[in-house]
Amino acid sequence: MRAFLIVGNKAVTKPFNLNDLAGSAGRMDIICRCIAQALFISHGIRKDVEVYVLLLGEPDPPKALKIVGSEVRYMAPDERNVGGIIRRALSLNVDKKWRKSTPGVYVARKNLCDLLEELNVRYDVIYLREDGFDIRKVACMLKNPLFILGDHLGLKEEDEEIVMKYAEMIVSVSKLSLQADQCIVIVHYELDRC
Amino acid sequence: MRAFLIVGNKAVTKPFNLNDLAGSAGRMDIICRCIAQALFISHGIRKDVEVYVLLLGEPDPPKALKIVGSEVRYMAPDERNVGGIIRRALSLNVDKKWRKSTPGVYVARKNLCDLLEELNVRYDVIYLREDGFDIRKVACMLKNPLFILGDHLGLKEEDEEIVMKYAEMIVSVSKLSLQADQCIVIVHYELDRC
Repeated sequence: MRAFLIVGNKAVTKPFNLNDLAGSAGRMDIICRCIAQALFISHGIRKDVEVYVLLLGEPDPPKALKIVGSEVRYMAPDERNVGGIIRRALSLNVDKKWRKSTPGVYVARKNLCDLLEELNVRYDVIYLREDGFDIRKVACMLKNPLFILGDHLGLKEEDEEIVMKYAEMIVSVSKLSLQADQCIVIVHYELDRC
Repeated sequence: MRAFLIVGNKAVTKPFNLNDLAGSAGRMDIICRCIAQALFISHGIRKDVEVYVLLLGEPDPPKALKIVGSEVRYMAPDERNVGGIIRRALSLNVDKKWRKSTPGVYVARKNLCDLLEELNVRYDVIYLREDGFDIRKVACMLKNPLFILGDHLGLKEEDEEIVMKYAEMIVSVSKLSLQADQCIVIVHYELDRC
């Protein structure tokens, strides 16, 4: 299995306007692209992938999403389609337990500690940061990795401290500063080659 | 310089509804993602990239777009923003000569032969297809490559014949069948490492 956890620092926590993903929805466009790039190949979905999203924007943070590749139905890779699926999940009342919204898509009230405590049992936590080990040198050693990425703002200092308590390794995908969804494509590419 | 040419088999050739990029606009979402992935890194645009798009959908094919990384202003990487820029270009009257629409964005009446005849002078034409040479083995030998990709439908047989007249090499980025924008991310990644 492979998993990704994307932290949306400004991504809103209530239903939002699908015509303004990059604006009033708090850069939800980035989250949509990350989900799509983690799940989709041409004409298919990667069944061995889970995507987690931590939404930290107003008005009701934190909320977490879980998207399970092997269960997802009726999802297309365009931002608007993924955005619609997120929006529906954010319309549900949440508590600490995962609640199903649409096939393969779950929502809960979880913060970063909750998520990592839960995921640490099943996954090796890998923090993606530009100063880490070269992905090419370590990709084939990774078993059940969970890759943690920030959005355009990266991770806040206090969130980074939490991640570092769980991270087994810091890994870099490029010397350039790339967009989060581009990092996900490269991680898949290097793991696929193993 | 690096360049990409994406063939949109169904991408419409008149202004379209930004709320339906993946539907009535003829999978314009794919074109938008390809342009964004070719041009953007985090918080910046690659100045050494040109993107060409061949639009073959109704009602007025063919049309071609040229987007010049070093000239682009006011573009954001979300599909809707890129879609708005394409829509504006498609509202102009076109002839065989490139006509400027917005900063760095040009439109013309060109078919695949016209484009390759023009680009062949400045670029080495590389056809991206799953059965080609492994990108990792050849990336560092490529000087001024132009990578040609199809959308979700690939290239029609007659278009592939035209491409093969110009192509210096067929290159593969993965044994999996990936989405066109994912191929672009991987091409950049391999070239960046050289």
